[in-house]
Amino acid sequence: MPSTLVRGGRVVTAESEYDADVLAVDGRIAQIGTDLDHIEADVVVEADGQWVLPGGVDPHTHMDMPVGDTSTCDDYTSGTIAAVHGGTTSIVDFCIQQHGQAPLDALATWKRKLAAAAPVCDVGFHLAVTDLSQPAWLADLARLPEHGVTSLKLFMAYKGTLGVDDGTIVRTMRIAAANGSLVLVHAENGDAIAVLVADALAAGHVEPVWHGRTRPPITEAEATARAISLAELTGCRLYVVHVSCAEALEPIVRAQAAGLPVHAETCVQYLLLDETALEKPGFEGAKAVFTPPPRAREQQEYLWRALQTRALEVVSTDHCPFRYADQKALGRADFTKIPNGAPGIEHRLVLLHEFGVRTGRLSRARWVELCCTAPARHFGLAPRKGTIAIGSDADLVVFDPERVQTISASTHHSRVDYSLYEGTTVRGAPSAVLVRGSVVVQDGELTAEPPRGVFLHRG
Amino acid sequence: MPSTLVRGGRVVTAESEYDADVLAVDGRIAQIGTDLDHIEADVVVEADGQWVLPGGVDPHTHMDMPVGDTSTCDDYTSGTIAAVHGGTTSIVDFCIQQHGQAPLDALATWKRKLAAAAPVCDVGFHLAVTDLSQPAWLADLARLPEHGVTSLKLFMAYKGTLGVDDGTIVRTMRIAAANGSLVLVHAENGDAIAVLVADALAAGHVEPVWHGRTRPPITEAEATARAISLAELTGCRLYVVHVSCAEALEPIVRAQAAGLPVHAETCVQYLLLDETALEKPGFEGAKAVFTPPPRAREQQEYLWRALQTRALEVVSTDHCPFRYADQKALGRADFTKIPNGAPGIEHRLVLLHEFGVRTGRLSRARWVELCCTAPARHFGLAPRKGTIAIGSDADLVVFDPERVQTISASTHHSRVDYSLYEGTTVRGAPSAVLVRGSVVVQDGELTAEPPRGVFLHRG
Amino acid sequence: MPSTLVRGGRVVTAESEYDADVLAVDGRIAQIGTDLDHIEADVVVEADGQWVLPGGVDPHTHMDMPVGDTSTCDDYTSGTIAAVHGGTTSIVDFCIQQHGQAPLDALATWKRKLAAAAPVCDVGFHLAVTDLSQPAWLADLARLPEHGVTSLKLFMAYKGTLGVDDGTIVRTMRIAAANGSLVLVHAENGDAIAVLVADALAAGHVEPVWHGRTRPPITEAEATARAISLAELTGCRLYVVHVSCAEALEPIVRAQAAGLPVHAETCVQYLLLDETALEKPGFEGAKAVFTPPPRAREQQEYLWRALQTRALEVVSTDHCPFRYADQKALGRADFTKIPNGAPGIEHRLVLLHEFGVRTGRLSRARWVELCCTAPARHFGLAPRKGTIAIGSDADLVVFDPERVQTISASTHHSRVDYSLYEGTTVRGAPSAVLVRGSVVVQDGELTAEPPRGVFLHRG
Amino acid sequence: MPSTLVRGGRVVTAESEYDADVLAVDGRIAQIGTDLDHIEADVVVEADGQWVLPGGVDPHTHMDMPVGDTSTCDDYTSGTIAAVHGGTTSIVDFCIQQHGQAPLDALATWKRKLAAAAPVCDVGFHLAVTDLSQPAWLADLARLPEHGVTSLKLFMAYKGTLGVDDGTIVRTMRIAAANGSLVLVHAENGDAIAVLVADALAAGHVEPVWHGRTRPPITEAEATARAISLAELTGCRLYVVHVSCAEALEPIVRAQAAGLPVHAETCVQYLLLDETALEKPGFEGAKAVFTPPPRAREQQEYLWRALQTRALEVVSTDHCPFRYADQKALGRADFTKIPNGAPGIEHRLVLLHEFGVRTGRLSRARWVELCCTAPARHFGLAPRKGTIAIGSDADLVVFDPERVQTISASTHHSRVDYSLYEGTTVRGAPSAVLVRGSVVVQDGELTAEPPRGVFLHRG
Repeated sequence: MPSTLVRGGRVVTAESEYDADVLAVDGRIAQIGTDLDHIEADVVVEADGQWVLPGGVDPHTHMDMPVGDTSTCDDYTSGTIAAVHGGTTSIVDFCIQQHGQAPLDALATWKRKLAAAAPVCDVGFHLAVTDLSQPAWLADLARLPEHGVTSLKLFMAYKGTLGVDDGTIVRTMRIAAANGSLVLVHAENGDAIAVLVADALAAGHVEPVWHGRTRPPITEAEATARAISLAELTGCRLYVVHVSCAEALEPIVRAQAAGLPVHAETCVQYLLLDETALEKPGFEGAKAVFTPPPRAREQQEYLWRALQTRALEVVSTDHCPFRYADQKALGRADFTKIPNGAPGIEHRLVLLHEFGVRTGRLSRARWVELCCTAPARHFGLAPRKGTIAIGSDADLVVFDPERVQTISASTHHSRVDYSLYEGTTVRGAPSAVLVRGSVVVQDGELTAEPPRGVFLHRG
Repeated sequence: MPSTLVRGGRVVTAESEYDADVLAVDGRIAQIGTDLDHIEADVVVEADGQWVLPGGVDPHTHMDMPVGDTSTCDDYTSGTIAAVHGGTTSIVDFCIQQHGQAPLDALATWKRKLAAAAPVCDVGFHLAVTDLSQPAWLADLARLPEHGVTSLKLFMAYKGTLGVDDGTIVRTMRIAAANGSLVLVHAENGDAIAVLVADALAAGHVEPVWHGRTRPPITEAEATARAISLAELTGCRLYVVHVSCAEALEPIVRAQAAGLPVHAETCVQYLLLDETALEKPGFEGAKAVFTPPPRAREQQEYLWRALQTRALEVVSTDHCPFRYADQKALGRADFTKIPNGAPGIEHRLVLLHEFGVRTGRLSRARWVELCCTAPARHFGLAPRKGTIAIGSDADLVVFDPERVQTISASTHHSRVDYSLYEGTTVRGAPSAVLVRGSVVVQDGELTAEPPRGVFLHRG
Repeated sequence: MPSTLVRGGRVVTAESEYDADVLAVDGRIAQIGTDLDHIEADVVVEADGQWVLPGGVDPHTHMDMPVGDTSTCDDYTSGTIAAVHGGTTSIVDFCIQQHGQAPLDALATWKRKLAAAAPVCDVGFHLAVTDLSQPAWLADLARLPEHGVTSLKLFMAYKGTLGVDDGTIVRTMRIAAANGSLVLVHAENGDAIAVLVADALAAGHVEPVWHGRTRPPITEAEATARAISLAELTGCRLYVVHVSCAEALEPIVRAQAAGLPVHAETCVQYLLLDETALEKPGFEGAKAVFTPPPRAREQQEYLWRALQTRALEVVSTDHCPFRYADQKALGRADFTKIPNGAPGIEHRLVLLHEFGVRTGRLSRARWVELCCTAPARHFGLAPRKGTIAIGSDADLVVFDPERVQTISASTHHSRVDYSLYEGTTVRGAPSAVLVRGSVVVQDGELTAEPPRGVFLHRG
Repeated sequence: MPSTLVRGGRVVTAESEYDADVLAVDGRIAQIGTDLDHIEADVVVEADGQWVLPGGVDPHTHMDMPVGDTSTCDDYTSGTIAAVHGGTTSIVDFCIQQHGQAPLDALATWKRKLAAAAPVCDVGFHLAVTDLSQPAWLADLARLPEHGVTSLKLFMAYKGTLGVDDGTIVRTMRIAAANGSLVLVHAENGDAIAVLVADALAAGHVEPVWHGRTRPPITEAEATARAISLAELTGCRLYVVHVSCAEALEPIVRAQAAGLPVHAETCVQYLLLDETALEKPGFEGAKAVFTPPPRAREQQEYLWRALQTRALEVVSTDHCPFRYADQKALGRADFTKIPNGAPGIEHRLVLLHEFGVRTGRLSRARWVELCCTAPARHFGLAPRKGTIAIGSDADLVVFDPERVQTISASTHHSRVDYSLYEGTTVRGAPSAVLVRGSVVVQDGELTAEPPRGVFLHRG
């Protein structure tokens, strides 16, 4: 049985931290303790003066996703390579049901796509429900957990493409309530936004900044409150993705105080960017065209506070990369044609460390909880992922708090040609990353024979 | 100039009460004072030992309204005769835009219908927006105030017939925000209810009681919160009709505390009936098939309290009569085929007096405010209607607090063949009712030549 | 029977407004109507083009009140002369129980003081409870309504002098709950403030600005919430005086939404002044030393909004005048020695007209309600005071909306030597004021034989 | 170096659970792993089929505490023996400052008392501030962290004995804010309660049930809200002890949502007993005379829910034992003479397991968090106590989920002569308990030479 010893580091989990060596045997953590160096491991990773974290879990990514006539520009190979460079060793990506396609067929398609790629870390799927016009498809949804898919996504925006109406939401939620699946919602009132967008275009407003102006916070708040009500009606557990503003937090906090199983994440970009990103000269604003849009600057503080009060339980990336040169460019003449989404999978841990841990907003334990432990727990991956405990997968990040890194599209590992954080220098970065006991990144380089990621059959 | 003197009564308004004679000249109140009996009026109405109230204003009625293949069974003649017998001297009814019909055409149609009838009291219209598929119709809506219509109704339930989507709501609200109209919403999540209804039918549940079980409070609460959010988005004033439960009151109270112009009414039936009305043996429950449905008994207390705290500002009837014998009967085999609605226009004042004033829940002033003054103010009829003040229309009710009445379909004046309050005995009833200075009801009888009501051009 | 006719004006009440003549006979309103000029009244007041308002009711004044070694500088003569010049025709002043004095003895003392003066308008008393060390005094409190005193004041600040502990509050509230009296609280946490004050003095901070810095909003908010809880415990009705900030409004709004009988006022100075008034150079800040202190500027908008949402139901003045020259000066070396209080009785109506009605924040009806009708109702004076209705006292203000006035200590009628609003020019002022049918002020001059005010035995 | 191996169990922490052996060396956890049986430990504890938990931390006990003329009947020997039998291996007890005594003198006294006893587990102290009449004592408080005391207790009830006024609260909180100490409050409005008690006694009500009737929930809610306000004023961290009702939870939840550092615990007895315990015939009710009193039955569900939503973060016992036979008996003729308090230290883990874990209300992880991890973290004992991690004290509980135990005063280990849970049978109990690597209880028996507990110098 192959073994790996991570030696001399300080283990940091969501619960505590302590100095210890960590031994992985056959891909799983077998021992944690002081003075394990007498053990002769096949591989030894030195972690002296560094932290040993559980591998990051990013529950919100979009690889190889068709959008209109194009697709996100990372596939499961390039996307996971970017992930592991940043210390993320598991992702839960979205399998999108096409209109007219049975959910299980959609899943089969996406599993094939995944199998065809060579992911370097593990990958699970949420299923995005877009069409329940066939009664039989309800049965498909009900059977998804047998196939390792225990979370369903619903888009309340994007009517006509991904978006669904409240009837579809209710029917999906009922199935989730029955089989214990978690329901994820993209909460924006698509109908209201469509009116604002039509008016903006009619008035000749075509620039990227109008993407933000036509999606005001109350459209997100309304949809969030509605999703919560429908979840309460049906009895399902709810997870609100990419919360961007205080207005949307309000109904979430109220529901949580009432004891409803309502959970929420934000994404790195809402903590660090604001609406001025859309106002940049020329077409630069297109880089920040994602939904919900970046908000007013003061919203950032509300989101940081919600991470502290636990109203927000996870930080994901919503990694959804489109090249600026040719993909974003589709919307040069009309902001509604800009593919929505932005990259970010590689820098979640380092950015939250820089702007969360180093500024004192987050303890190290909370940082690990938000990026690793909580997403694993919410998405049926605990205790296999997200923690450092005996029997768990030996997905480990050796994080050097002094390693300095400057973020740039010229050095990052996604195929996308820009970064939202171009030029940002951070202190603290992974020096080594292990997936199931195998080193996949060492000193910023992918190892010669990286591990092969597997489909995550979630519980 | 014809004059009428109401002599010896105790004037009760929303603000105060005092003993005084009231003199009407040429249809309007000309003098209020002690000892006006030296004045030689054409008509003298004795009010000794009785109260003199402003005529009631019922802002929520449905006369002669087509629903499916049938129509509500009161027209503007029978409906207003029922109204004045109960002390209501102004109604605001609903002009319903048909799909494919221009709003101004709809209004013209309904005005003709009104003109063809012989209403015995004054009648205004809200316009119910059901179709904005033609851009030109937005301009129609914008011009409605010129035609005396300053309130727009939107149905969030009844998708496919009266119901509209959020886009239509937003577009209507924007016009209302611009021209100062008030937006009324029927707040129920029609999409969610449709799923519950389909499931109930699929399970073979066809009895009237399932009308209530498929419209739980949270479907009303959700739509209420959504309407408020969309009103906030657009900046319009909002009026939520027929609030039936604490869950729906919650977002209303929150909005009011935040200073938003959000108003709400309940109806008599929600204060006095509960869900057991739907559970009656045989098909009796069909009589209580209206929307929202009658709720759990404890909801009544929440509504009474909201009348006290002013979260609810108006009590209307939602008079929408269908005969039990042949109209309600359409749904004997399927509760979804039961025409939704119930009668009630005649007994609003007496029922609120019996169960509100006499039980101590409402002061006399608050009773008058809820039934007369507040609806007049909200719907652009003040100070012409709803109060007893110099220059106001001499719509007056001489209310005898000792007059005993037993409510029955056999004696009421609507054409409908049942009463929700059959057999209920109340103490306190109008002994005389005046419309613009003319006696229309005296001692329970319509006068020989009742006044002719006019269209209320509202401000 | 003497009669007075107010001719040609526009009557404005809390409920509506209309053109009418008003006839007073024997001090009370006898007729309201169009064309009353055929009546030969003893006195005719021309109100052409002007408004006729009910006389103002100021429920919060401190005349001739001993504080330490000094007293407020207006007695019931000068104070009421100032009042009527501003259109206020009833005040409810504070009878302060001295330590060791029986409540009924306190009342007798203050009634004598009132009788000895020559008030030109009517005066009632609240009783301020300061000492319940004798069990017999509880019985005194219980009997106060027989003596025309139906409201009790409790100071939660000023420990050692006026302040009482929670035990005294509870005992007083229980009596009020039993006999229906209203409990007024000055809500500030005196104990907490005492620590902040002691620390400030210890640090050498003696300037007036420290008056504000040692009374932060949360000390008011806490005491407000506590008073509400104790009122809920005992079942009494509560009225929170001089609310100055959003933090204190919060528990009030919550209590009102829950249906508790909790009411609140603010005062003119909190709507118009802010903390910079305390920061003026030299000793000028002493003029704005009152409690709670003037707050941050943004608080003003919260208070205006609360007047609109009805969270605040009354605007009073807390007229509590101390001369700047010799009384305020007592605290030149130590801000805690500055007598707390400021004048304002004369300019409530005109200031609220200027900054409320003319700016569009308040309708005319709401202005009348806040200054006249609501205080009369809350303090047992309705319908005798606060409205224009048959049988009510003919306390009337003929208000000329075009009359321009510049506020100044050199022209006002209080004995105090400064004004908080020195130099402020307002448009709109009383041209004539009547107390029980008698003209007391005409064109800014006190009439030669002004009416004699009486003690208001309140219900 | 002495070593102990706990073999074959399932480790349960607040974060996860897994099968592993645990090796303690020199009192601390040195290794966790699969297959450690090759290690030759001095002592081996078999945990096959059982759970291995971190030792319990009870942050709320009262040993050897003088109350009036008596004292709690457990000293640090008997009390800690009872503790370890139930799996609690650390307590934080209360050092009570006497009136007139310097805080550091109080601490010295209590440390001597502890040293004189032979505690079998570790013991820390909170300092209860009762008297700040000497300015120098503030400096004492400021210096307490140097002495290992980082939490201060304030009693808002019990005026005249332990109780303090708001001024003392503010002064204490300011020191805590400055030196980072946590402030604990017993939140009941003592002044209000004193009035209710005096009235009850005056009416001849002397039975134990009146203990509860004179302390209604709102007296707890008010004091809780006040403590939160004062904590906000001063900037200190707050911990509300023994929360017993929804009314008190309300301000806590609000504060937490606002991001204030407000924490709270409940105690076992509020989760399991209700007010009927006070209504038992004869003098039996005296056994349940503790403060706050047991509440209405429905409150239990609110508390369980708050444990789930994390509004409540800790479950303690408030172990405060008085013998029924002779100590509680002091109040036979007057409920106010019954010493307040009840025992419970021994059964916290088993009762929460039985009624929390086995009923599905709490996960095992949450149970461990509430009883072990969270109290350690809140009271400066993490990561030394409350978790199973490398380097932490090897305080371990081997918990047999199948072990059946019937709770009884005849078998428990406290010196008190009754149990609130007499006759209750629970499934699941410790089979072995270790303190810093030494077995202290094995199969329900104290080991011959139990370890000696030490004073917990907290951080």
